[in-house]
Amino acid sequence: MTDVNLGAAASAPDGLLDAFWAYETALMANDLAELDRLFAAGDDTLRGDAGGILYGHDAISTFRKGRGGALKRTIVSVVVREIDEDAAVVVAVTAPVTGGRGQQTQLWRRIDGDWAVEVAHVSLPAPAVNATVWRTVGTPLVAGAEAPELASQTVAVKDLFDVAGFAVGAGVPAYLAEAPLATAHAPAVAALLATGADIAGIARTDEFAYSIAGRNPHYGTPPNGAVVGGIPGGSSSGPASAVALGQASIGLGTDTGGSLRVPASYQGLWGLRTTHGAVSVEGLLPLAPSFDTVGWLTRDAWVMRAAATASLDLSRQVLPPSARFAVAGALTAQSTAGVSSAFEAAIETLAADGLIDDLADVDLGHIDDLFETFRVVQAAEAWATHGEWIVAHPGALGDDIAARFAWASTISAEAEARARVALAAARLSIEDALDGRTLLLPAASSVAPSATASPETIESTRASTLRLTCIAGLTGRPGLSVPALTVDGAPVGLCVVAPRYGDLGAVITGAKFHSALVPQAD
Amino acid sequence: MTDVNLGAAASAPDGLLDAFWAYETALMANDLAELDRLFAAGDDTLRGDAGGILYGHDAISTFRKGRGGALKRTIVSVVVREIDEDAAVVVAVTAPVTGGRGQQTQLWRRIDGDWAVEVAHVSLPAPAVNATVWRTVGTPLVAGAEAPELASQTVAVKDLFDVAGFAVGAGVPAYLAEAPLATAHAPAVAALLATGADIAGIARTDEFAYSIAGRNPHYGTPPNGAVVGGIPGGSSSGPASAVALGQASIGLGTDTGGSLRVPASYQGLWGLRTTHGAVSVEGLLPLAPSFDTVGWLTRDAWVMRAAATASLDLSRQVLPPSARFAVAGALTAQSTAGVSSAFEAAIETLAADGLIDDLADVDLGHIDDLFETFRVVQAAEAWATHGEWIVAHPGALGDDIAARFAWASTISAEAEARARVALAAARLSIEDALDGRTLLLPAASSVAPSATASPETIESTRASTLRLTCIAGLTGRPGLSVPALTVDGAPVGLCVVAPRYGDLGAVITGAKFHSALVPQAD
Repeated sequence: MTDVNLGAAASAPDGLLDAFWAYETALMANDLAELDRLFAAGDDTLRGDAGGILYGHDAISTFRKGRGGALKRTIVSVVVREIDEDAAVVVAVTAPVTGGRGQQTQLWRRIDGDWAVEVAHVSLPAPAVNATVWRTVGTPLVAGAEAPELASQTVAVKDLFDVAGFAVGAGVPAYLAEAPLATAHAPAVAALLATGADIAGIARTDEFAYSIAGRNPHYGTPPNGAVVGGIPGGSSSGPASAVALGQASIGLGTDTGGSLRVPASYQGLWGLRTTHGAVSVEGLLPLAPSFDTVGWLTRDAWVMRAAATASLDLSRQVLPPSARFAVAGALTAQSTAGVSSAFEAAIETLAADGLIDDLADVDLGHIDDLFETFRVVQAAEAWATHGEWIVAHPGALGDDIAARFAWASTISAEAEARARVALAAARLSIEDALDGRTLLLPAASSVAPSATASPETIESTRASTLRLTCIAGLTGRPGLSVPALTVDGAPVGLCVVAPRYGDLGAVITGAKFHSALVPQAD
Repeated sequence: MTDVNLGAAASAPDGLLDAFWAYETALMANDLAELDRLFAAGDDTLRGDAGGILYGHDAISTFRKGRGGALKRTIVSVVVREIDEDAAVVVAVTAPVTGGRGQQTQLWRRIDGDWAVEVAHVSLPAPAVNATVWRTVGTPLVAGAEAPELASQTVAVKDLFDVAGFAVGAGVPAYLAEAPLATAHAPAVAALLATGADIAGIARTDEFAYSIAGRNPHYGTPPNGAVVGGIPGGSSSGPASAVALGQASIGLGTDTGGSLRVPASYQGLWGLRTTHGAVSVEGLLPLAPSFDTVGWLTRDAWVMRAAATASLDLSRQVLPPSARFAVAGALTAQSTAGVSSAFEAAIETLAADGLIDDLADVDLGHIDDLFETFRVVQAAEAWATHGEWIVAHPGALGDDIAARFAWASTISAEAEARARVALAAARLSIEDALDGRTLLLPAASSVAPSATASPETIESTRASTLRLTCIAGLTGRPGLSVPALTVDGAPVGLCVVAPRYGDLGAVITGAKFHSALVPQAD
């Protein structure tokens, strides 16, 4: 019944169409063994879709095991282009039951007598909007002013900021259902609009922004735009994925413990956490006010610089003392071997290029203690912010974040008080050790873990990364993740933690580093 | 510099990579002659992307001429899978300058010594939202009630209906800029929400809905989900494309002169224009109140039936006298030869199957006069509705619709009065001729014209189609376009024009016809 176009050859190689239909039957039945059999063994086999390309039979097999079956569909038409009696390309138009049309292009080869797919390229119809990335999108949602600085730039606003006419959902459906419509834009939103950017839409966050993973049990996990199958990083996950996917040019987010730097690192973006207090948090749903900051994610350094310039009080900005940098060996050692060596190689390159001429290896104190101080104060404030609502809405949160808040609820007033004393001391001791230097460190302890990684792996990655990222939180310093490192093809950020109010200085420094470290495209 | 993965073969066929890079250079330079040379001659060559597959070297060449160059990009990685010394598949990951990643899979063959592409499959990163189809999208934009009838269905609302919290834009940016936010949903919107459907978003329309083409000079032409490169049909263009593309399951639209039936016909959808007056037009921006009606577009008959049942006052519905049908030869003859013969063959099949046992060929009067009556009253009312705003906003409309309104502005009170008398007479004479029968006719005079068709072709198609569609307008009858005909693979609707308040009867009849005419998928 399906139209088969055989072209001038007027025939298909013997057995090919049987194999093609066997594959289709197995796909619809999610017969994993049969699908494995019908994809060629070995590392030369590949399969690509909108999420990226998987290389090798086993990676494809693992992907199939995880997805729980393909979208149900019918085949509308089939084209066979015979190359020889043992090779052909088959192009099929598919009709998913959910509407629209897809395309599937396969290179079939007969290997030891059996037909198998060696190359597959699968396209599905695009949804109206990727609901894992976005909550609401307009064309634009809010038009920017006629201003040149950010003209034609589009902003994905993390679902924590007031956008006039819309409620704040904070990644929690039950919270969104009760939230009032904002009557004015948050100043951080208004600043971008005033300089010409359009608001494209409201993008996803981890629940109440209390995570750095980027997973949301209600709306799903946004795709990582750089690592096939990787978690996006959070909690500014939606804005980060929107920018990495080319669906916005600026992500407006927040960073309490790493929520801009981590998704930037995982997806190869520029990500700036600004100096604590440098950008107004009015109209922003807080998490832990002692650490909450506003910032941006971009693909291009100049867009980051323009967004920061539009939003910061320039009269308070200081340029960091030129070329006085620090690393902290004990911090870097929190990273995986791959990240550590990529970071150290980058520092060597920057030194060799004369971009770092004064580098100190500093001791910031006991890393575990610093992190514990950060996380106790953060948790106490998070519970103070959201505890009442959470108690009133049992079951509203997914298990992971519910457990985190449950732990936060157990922090005694005395423990909190002790941690606040330790925090004040840590600020002084870290700044004393840094002596006005700009700290350089990896933006995350690893590349993006796989979305199918074990809970243990995700948790240990989180614990290591937060030890790196909490230094900016503890000191109130700005932190810029520069997309300058790669480990086995996956991005990692080089983090520039400048002195307070050195935000623009960090962007200028980061751009110089990037030019030196990343070979420019032609 | 670009990573080239040659797999186990460890080499690429001689000259292949040079041809690949020559193609890339030509693509970036939009060197049409070189691109033509590097695609294999003849009908076996094909190229597919999200818009569908183009078959044959010449169709691909014509497409390239019309697009004005490809999106600028760099190549991130290249995989070559050699088949023999004269054939290889090349898979490239592309990085468009606008962000995200694409994939391009090509079958290259050496023909008479020269390498050329025989099969190409191109994927670009999806935009956040297709702005030709949608104005604003949510996940959902407005959540429906907990009700079973339309649970899990999603609605694309034509940008003429009030959705609380949003303005009506009517396809005209200057109008949108001044429009107030609606404070309540239009009843037609509320009815779908009340029965469980979610509002997915607000979708595009032709300017002030005064067209059946589906082109909008401000926001672009939505893609036709069924005909590669075809116009979508309008004025409910955005809802129609959203449904055809699988981005919504129900399009809520309006039909004054064919604005639901024509896009349904062009894109293979169910499209119902309801009885004039049967669904409230409160909260709907009018065009010509004597003819304006509300209705829906769906992919499935049962969804149409559910939407209609949710929205119509069932106590007023009548079932048409069973199996008493009419055709009007003079109307059918307005269609192209392909459409006429597909229509006539369908009527024969339905008669042979016993679904039509009483068929009369009726004379409805002079077709050109009927159409003239319709278009003069429509134009007078359209000017009465929008003339003042248009005069106050010179340049706000594109040339085509501006010219149509300019003509409408010239209709004298006397001409309008004469046309209204003729309209009253036409209603009586048509109903007299039909004698309670359900009229069957093609839903459009042709398949969807190409978006690159000449203005003359578009205009002559419009003139013929409106002669068919105006009969429902003149009589206030409902008209259902049933996706039951095809001409050379392109869809055409079979239109069921039931007596007034026979809306649900038309859907029931249409579903029976569809089952008889369209072989069901397995």
